[in-house]
Amino acid sequence: MLIDSINSPTDIKKLDTEQLTALAVEIRKGLMNRLSKRGGHLGPNFGMVEATIALHYVFDSPRDKFVFDVSHQCYTHKILTGRKRAFFDDAHFEDISGYTNPEESEHDFFNVGHTSTSVSLACGLAKSRDLKGESGNVIAIIGDGSLSGGEALEGMDYAAELGSNFIIVVNDNDMSIAENHGGLYKNLKALRDSDGKAECNLFRAMGLDYRFVADGNDTAQLIAAFSEVKDIDHPTVVHIVTKKGKGYAPAETEKENWHWHMPFDPESGHSPQFGGGEDYGDLTCDYLMKKMKNDPRVVAMAAAVPVCIGFTPEKRAEAGRQFIDVGIAEEHAVAMASGLAKNGCKPVFATHSSFFQRTYDQISQDLCINSNPATLLVNTASVYGMHDITHLGIFDIAMMSNIPNLVYLAPTNCEEYFAMLEWSIEQNSYPVAIRIPCNGVHHTYSPVDTDYSALNRYKVTQQGSKTAILALGDFYQLGEELAALIAEKTGIVPTLINPRYITGVDETLLGQLTEDHDTVITLEDGILDGGFGGKIAGFYGPSKMKVCNYGLKKEFLDRYAVEDVLKANHLTAEQIYSDIS
Amino acid sequence: MLIDSINSPTDIKKLDTEQLTALAVEIRKGLMNRLSKRGGHLGPNFGMVEATIALHYVFDSPRDKFVFDVSHQCYTHKILTGRKRAFFDDAHFEDISGYTNPEESEHDFFNVGHTSTSVSLACGLAKSRDLKGESGNVIAIIGDGSLSGGEALEGMDYAAELGSNFIIVVNDNDMSIAENHGGLYKNLKALRDSDGKAECNLFRAMGLDYRFVADGNDTAQLIAAFSEVKDIDHPTVVHIVTKKGKGYAPAETEKENWHWHMPFDPESGHSPQFGGGEDYGDLTCDYLMKKMKNDPRVVAMAAAVPVCIGFTPEKRAEAGRQFIDVGIAEEHAVAMASGLAKNGCKPVFATHSSFFQRTYDQISQDLCINSNPATLLVNTASVYGMHDITHLGIFDIAMMSNIPNLVYLAPTNCEEYFAMLEWSIEQNSYPVAIRIPCNGVHHTYSPVDTDYSALNRYKVTQQGSKTAILALGDFYQLGEELAALIAEKTGIVPTLINPRYITGVDETLLGQLTEDHDTVITLEDGILDGGFGGKIAGFYGPSKMKVCNYGLKKEFLDRYAVEDVLKANHLTAEQIYSDIS
Repeated sequence: MLIDSINSPTDIKKLDTEQLTALAVEIRKGLMNRLSKRGGHLGPNFGMVEATIALHYVFDSPRDKFVFDVSHQCYTHKILTGRKRAFFDDAHFEDISGYTNPEESEHDFFNVGHTSTSVSLACGLAKSRDLKGESGNVIAIIGDGSLSGGEALEGMDYAAELGSNFIIVVNDNDMSIAENHGGLYKNLKALRDSDGKAECNLFRAMGLDYRFVADGNDTAQLIAAFSEVKDIDHPTVVHIVTKKGKGYAPAETEKENWHWHMPFDPESGHSPQFGGGEDYGDLTCDYLMKKMKNDPRVVAMAAAVPVCIGFTPEKRAEAGRQFIDVGIAEEHAVAMASGLAKNGCKPVFATHSSFFQRTYDQISQDLCINSNPATLLVNTASVYGMHDITHLGIFDIAMMSNIPNLVYLAPTNCEEYFAMLEWSIEQNSYPVAIRIPCNGVHHTYSPVDTDYSALNRYKVTQQGSKTAILALGDFYQLGEELAALIAEKTGIVPTLINPRYITGVDETLLGQLTEDHDTVITLEDGILDGGFGGKIAGFYGPSKMKVCNYGLKKEFLDRYAVEDVLKANHLTAEQIYSDIS
Repeated sequence: MLIDSINSPTDIKKLDTEQLTALAVEIRKGLMNRLSKRGGHLGPNFGMVEATIALHYVFDSPRDKFVFDVSHQCYTHKILTGRKRAFFDDAHFEDISGYTNPEESEHDFFNVGHTSTSVSLACGLAKSRDLKGESGNVIAIIGDGSLSGGEALEGMDYAAELGSNFIIVVNDNDMSIAENHGGLYKNLKALRDSDGKAECNLFRAMGLDYRFVADGNDTAQLIAAFSEVKDIDHPTVVHIVTKKGKGYAPAETEKENWHWHMPFDPESGHSPQFGGGEDYGDLTCDYLMKKMKNDPRVVAMAAAVPVCIGFTPEKRAEAGRQFIDVGIAEEHAVAMASGLAKNGCKPVFATHSSFFQRTYDQISQDLCINSNPATLLVNTASVYGMHDITHLGIFDIAMMSNIPNLVYLAPTNCEEYFAMLEWSIEQNSYPVAIRIPCNGVHHTYSPVDTDYSALNRYKVTQQGSKTAILALGDFYQLGEELAALIAEKTGIVPTLINPRYITGVDETLLGQLTEDHDTVITLEDGILDGGFGGKIAGFYGPSKMKVCNYGLKKEFLDRYAVEDVLKANHLTAEQIYSDIS
């Protein structure tokens, strides 16, 4: 096997084109081995094998610096830069992350996981090179899907000012995670259809030079193009056309489904069926489909991850013009939702907690200053959410709940979630965000409130004394467990409270608690800094009430086991009971 | 005077072109009256007089809906929509804000003050119109400077998908606040130079139709172009070329200086000299110029507001390639700063607190996950900062201080500020943000620490007992005042502490305080929710220590008097003393 002799990028420079093509076949075997057993980004990595080989063949990493956008396509890069064991040897799967990672290799420059950042990050590397009087190439590799993100467009626009070596490889596979959205994709098509010769050219319009490679899975074409731009003295785009999922037939056909995939049988393409059961994505989609059919003003909005609220291609088609996918453009999504609400529609925009980070200013300025009644659904907002350092869902309480005018709700079960969503869609007074529960679909047989317009009224679900537990959202079940444990151990039933509102303090209820309680425990599924517990501690600060805040430490976790993190933060009922006794 | 008969947009529809041209002259008199006496955005408003008249002449506001980007050019719109008294009658200056404001008029749809939001907001209005089966035009009016912002580029890209009436008026005066930066401005020039006929066209490349108006200060040309696109059935750009500051010679010549201007004598263009004295902008610029001369790796970065850290055109020229203005592209700036730092440079990026809101995700993902040692200077971060609802500087502590890995520092005087800045530039371990003091330039004769690498060590500046005051940043002087008052009234000297680090808790010191203190008072110049005091209250929650947090209520203030806000939030030494006694 050729791969046996490849331990660093210099090793592939000895191979001829035929061997490089053969190497691509071997690399795909390594990708398949890892992806079929462990899951991961299949489509992006299968599509980029030849281009990554050609990049390493032509350029001299790490002197020449590659910055991969999202870096979900960096597997071949990892294989060629000393990390092949993580693909070919099952015992070493956990050696690497799914993204570029400077702690793993000198060939990686940034931990990256969000889209559209590569050009700006690479601009910094290039400018630094120039100021220090050094040489070498800086190459950003960005997919067509990421181009619609504001940060990428800002970066491309600025890159034209660099006036020195800078190369942007645009990996155009005509797909985002789902299909692309936005006018610029017509231009990419025009460029593809004209062999890159269309006069109207987005990249040139942004002040960049431009080259076109018709077959971005043809190693020889790629090497020729990259060799031509190596050591170029000004910024240029190399637009390569690749096939997403190239080399694995199911992925070439069903591109959206195979963008990221759980473990599967390579022969059949099938994955083992997991428990099945209820899922908030499907439930949310079903609910919204019904709402939309009854009210043409209801609009479901996504930003490139429609499936996070269950909008599969079929559901999107069924929803028609009442479903909007803006592509990777979260800033636009929030501002547009504000405009929709202002003009009488009922927009519901959903994305992951981590991706809402793109929209702090839009939530504040475009939405909340204007108090327009749009609904934001915050997905995977939990320690139970995504576990990669770049996709954590534990910061949204700190980020969003301190923005004025926003009503941020934390439902504790399925019925409460849909009651809150229904209320939010039907009311006209507030911008509302709702944390979609993330710790499984819990049902309640107790009635849930339907009107949440009296803001910041917490709900006492068990009246007790001495100790009160304020158990927010996903940690309500932990609160129940803790309440039972305290009652069992002490014989005194504590009060259990569902705060529901993350954004405000129920001063009346908290004031009443001082009469027959001496300790308040807060539980929240997010970092403590800037969070819910701090508001409660601040309220009781001048009083005799003891307040114990439980939540997560402010840190960037990476590839963690939930149980470990809960334990490290004293977030089991037993630990909390032991702390307070 | 024609203006006497103009009380709503319908009134100008009766005028002929000659009268409309005469009306423009009268309107500029009203603008001059207000701007010379009260200050405001001069250049943008003087340049847009004819275009605004033509828009209202052709379209039927508010059925046809205008969304002004930044809305710092909306004065003529206000004059034509029933608010002319605020320009012609000095007693009514305070009737209006400097931006569009739905509370003032049905012709305004959004409170806007940040750049690059108009297209996305207007997309929402248009989509809503379509879903409700209504008709009418939706028109976004955006300046060339705002086009470089990611939100605007996302919005333009998405707009092409609307498939119905949508008009983007690009007001191209070839200026941002300072000069434009970015490759797209070459394309705008090519379009201007070719009468809009250049084949390579940014707007068409984004999937939009396109029209060109060579003289955007010629009412007849504008009326013709707007009439042509009225009721158009698809999205289009109307690119109009205007002169910034048109009609006032000093503003036409010195465009940057007259973008926003304090009150002035219209004859001479001169403003009364205010006290002079020291200013953190100039001091910061002088410091950075010296650093840059001694170290080619130091880079000063701005995003369209270089003067906020003193970089006038002369200083920018002097700094040469060590000064970077990325234009309106804050996301790019933070990511690029991370790249610069990663590759060994020492970037210092400064902008206003309110504009850092654009960069939450970039600070978190591009910078802090990667722990790159870039420096962020947060300007006008204070209740003493800007007073418009869209430019408040009271949210950055809540937004930034809860991001892991960031070291956010709050200097209490000039010497400490520069010591922190010096330390930040020279260290290689942490991303650092510094709140530039905003309550005047205070000096100290005590030595200040030069090394801040032992994180989260607060500084005891006066050892006392019973009460400890943690006085953060700009509120340190308030802390001194309060300490003196407590000593005077009670005879017991309180402990005064300069926390310095916003991002962490000095657990050792706080633990020691429990020995001979029973009350801790925190003072911070920002909202309490998500802020510094909450961390202290959380730390002491389980203990007997009483904690009183002082800061601002979580709310969007607008055009406030600082003294009123301080009083309403109990932020005078007398009020605090009275509260705690």
